Amino acid sequence: MHNNATQIIMIGDGMGGRPVPSLDGQTCLEAGDYPALDEVARGGECGYTDPIRPGQAVGSDTGHMVILGYDPVEYYTGRGPFEAKGVGIDVQPGDVAFRCNFSTVENGIIKDRRAGRITEGTHQLAAAANQAFSDGIDGVEVIFKESVAHRAALVLRGEGLDPRITDVDPHETGGKVPKCQPTAEASNDPAAQKTAAIINEFVQGVQEVFENHEVNQQRRAAGLPPANIVLPRGAGTAPHLMPFPEQYGLSSAMIVEVDLVRGLGLYLNMDVINVPEATGGMDTDEMAMAQAVVEAAASHDFVLCNIKSPGVGGPDGNAEQQMAAIAKVDRAVGHLLETFDWDSTVLMVTADHCTPVTVMDHSGDAIPAAFYGHGVRPDGVQSFGERPFAAGSVHRIHGLDIMYIMGNYAGTLPKFGA
Amino acid sequence: MHNNATQIIMIGDGMGGRPVPSLDGQTCLEAGDYPALDEVARGGECGYTDPIRPGQAVGSDTGHMVILGYDPVEYYTGRGPFEAKGVGIDVQPGDVAFRCNFSTVENGIIKDRRAGRITEGTHQLAAAANQAFSDGIDGVEVIFKESVAHRAALVLRGEGLDPRITDVDPHETGGKVPKCQPTAEASNDPAAQKTAAIINEFVQGVQEVFENHEVNQQRRAAGLPPANIVLPRGAGTAPHLMPFPEQYGLSSAMIVEVDLVRGLGLYLNMDVINVPEATGGMDTDEMAMAQAVVEAAASHDFVLCNIKSPGVGGPDGNAEQQMAAIAKVDRAVGHLLETFDWDSTVLMVTADHCTPVTVMDHSGDAIPAAFYGHGVRPDGVQSFGERPFAAGSVHRIHGLDIMYIMGNYAGTLPKFGA
Repeated sequence: MHNNATQIIMIGDGMGGRPVPSLDGQTCLEAGDYPALDEVARGGECGYTDPIRPGQAVGSDTGHMVILGYDPVEYYTGRGPFEAKGVGIDVQPGDVAFRCNFSTVENGIIKDRRAGRITEGTHQLAAAANQAFSDGIDGVEVIFKESVAHRAALVLRGEGLDPRITDVDPHETGGKVPKCQPTAEASNDPAAQKTAAIINEFVQGVQEVFENHEVNQQRRAAGLPPANIVLPRGAGTAPHLMPFPEQYGLSSAMIVEVDLVRGLGLYLNMDVINVPEATGGMDTDEMAMAQAVVEAAASHDFVLCNIKSPGVGGPDGNAEQQMAAIAKVDRAVGHLLETFDWDSTVLMVTADHCTPVTVMDHSGDAIPAAFYGHGVRPDGVQSFGERPFAAGSVHRIHGLDIMYIMGNYAGTLPKFGA
Repeated sequence: MHNNATQIIMIGDGMGGRPVPSLDGQTCLEAGDYPALDEVARGGECGYTDPIRPGQAVGSDTGHMVILGYDPVEYYTGRGPFEAKGVGIDVQPGDVAFRCNFSTVENGIIKDRRAGRITEGTHQLAAAANQAFSDGIDGVEVIFKESVAHRAALVLRGEGLDPRITDVDPHETGGKVPKCQPTAEASNDPAAQKTAAIINEFVQGVQEVFENHEVNQQRRAAGLPPANIVLPRGAGTAPHLMPFPEQYGLSSAMIVEVDLVRGLGLYLNMDVINVPEATGGMDTDEMAMAQAVVEAAASHDFVLCNIKSPGVGGPDGNAEQQMAAIAKVDRAVGHLLETFDWDSTVLMVTADHCTPVTVMDHSGDAIPAAFYGHGVRPDGVQSFGERPFAAGSVHRIHGLDIMYIMGNYAGTLPKFGA
């Protein structure tokens, strides 16, 4: 019976780790009490996924690309395009895009990478920058747009560009503003040289425009650091990706807290749903997010939700916080378990990457994953966690297999062959 | 916390097998008492690797290429380049190289493939051969060098060569010296035809030079078989491989007993460390090798060690000997377990291929593998062996994933994405 079940992927961001000494060698997933996750494990098929290949750590952007079935090895060159899309720029395939910071520079030295976490005036500054470069640079169109606080994005549109260039943002203060240049592998590439030159001209030109801009005159008068430079980073070429609805023939919604992932969703033409109570931190309202999933599923074939906080507790090295964050994911999953008709719904619970508190960064460990609901074959695993999942029937799959497995259970994936 | 742990790969050569009737259907790994290997299993992540693909048996050269992260399907055409490098020839990418034997021929019939296991005079013979071909053959440079006993290597350097040619060494005595010719797939390839013609000219020319060479006059006088011919085999083009230190950004050492693997290490610009007590046989001093690993790790980021004897016991069909050889690997691993700080060291214990005593040759069975030390997630497996590892969390990975997994635990592998 093909019933086209609703497909839901619930992601605990960075939810997966390694043994923690203070937890008697258990992981945060193993040590905590997560009744809903355990129910998913007991009723589901469990195992691991590797987003790229075993051992290879991924980012939030590349991790979500894989889950959604788009191969980052083929398509990803940098975060810029998804950042720019999230900021609201109409990014087109072939554009080279950048994440940017409004920053403070004094006598050529970077004093504050966030310009005092500026909250007002960035719209006027961005307008001035676009005005200054309204004729483009070296035949390339320049599009700059502010986002929340010190954040912004830049898009270059034209021929002969290459994203293999270095960041202008040095990720630290106290030094000179680095010159953009081709990366080592692209050092002799004319397109990379041209792109780097355009960025250098943009950064210098913006600095001249911003230095005495009215916004900065007012900031200086108020004793605030001026936003007198823009530091681009994360160059990437916007890839030719088939939009999600056309790729799968599914209407789709995304409910996430990470701007970068939101940008990916927008880029894939998914319906990105805003949940005001979702903060991205430990104070996020996970039940509001879960309810948003329920509501989105009423009108969409596919819903992806990411609760960010487990990945926050990881980099901070705080096992108790990561366990509390996983408990938020558990409560959200519990709401889904109680609400949906599991004869017509397929759920996957997983992570985009592991974030062991002993590493305090993304790791390349195999990611726990469980499929639950319509059609799945429970495999006897009794609890949700790294060790228990070694015995699961999913074994160890490539992340690009996820959408196939979901489509199989949902009845939306056509047969290959006769 | 990125800690850049030291990486150690300990290989029991050919250590993996199949059920042995005389062991009540257990394998040699399962039937023996190996406390250190079992400790690695209990504290580690266990599973299987396939070097090329499931079922495909590999050689010592290709097996080690895979472990070190170099794909033999893409880069390997024959053992010659690694043999020649191991013999001390400065092999360059693009060279076509051969393993050779000094042999004895009488009236055109091969009498002894090892020329009475000749021990002296090969240096003079090689000098005479190089002298005879100092102008090259058909525009191709010829480099010939003796190794230990009857062993030698040959390198052809020039344009228009192809390694798809047959061995001159027939691997048996009593027959004529075969003519070198293109393999079936390359039968119409001009480069293969040219390369085969050069080899035939080399073999015939060497025979003329050696026949009455002073070394052979003395051998005949002493009643020894003359080394009056050279039989090349194992043609391969030296591949363009990124040296290991540049490929991984890791200083690296290799402690092995197999000349072919030693040649690979030299070719990859690893520090190949000689352990005088390592014999390659059952009388090898495995504790001296283990101590050499400990000492190498003090000044290298990565150390690969291969203890040869398990792979010797396999081809001989002797289960007791293979178990005794595995016990040597166990003692060496035990020394590592006692010596290293496992908060800053990652260990993999595996084999380059299986060598079931019931097969008496390399087999394509999945190879047991365990990762131990910093960062790994113990999976509940209690002993080292083919059956127990079916329950391990590594499941079944491609051999080319090994260096990624090591880099993940060691903290040396960059994240892909943002």
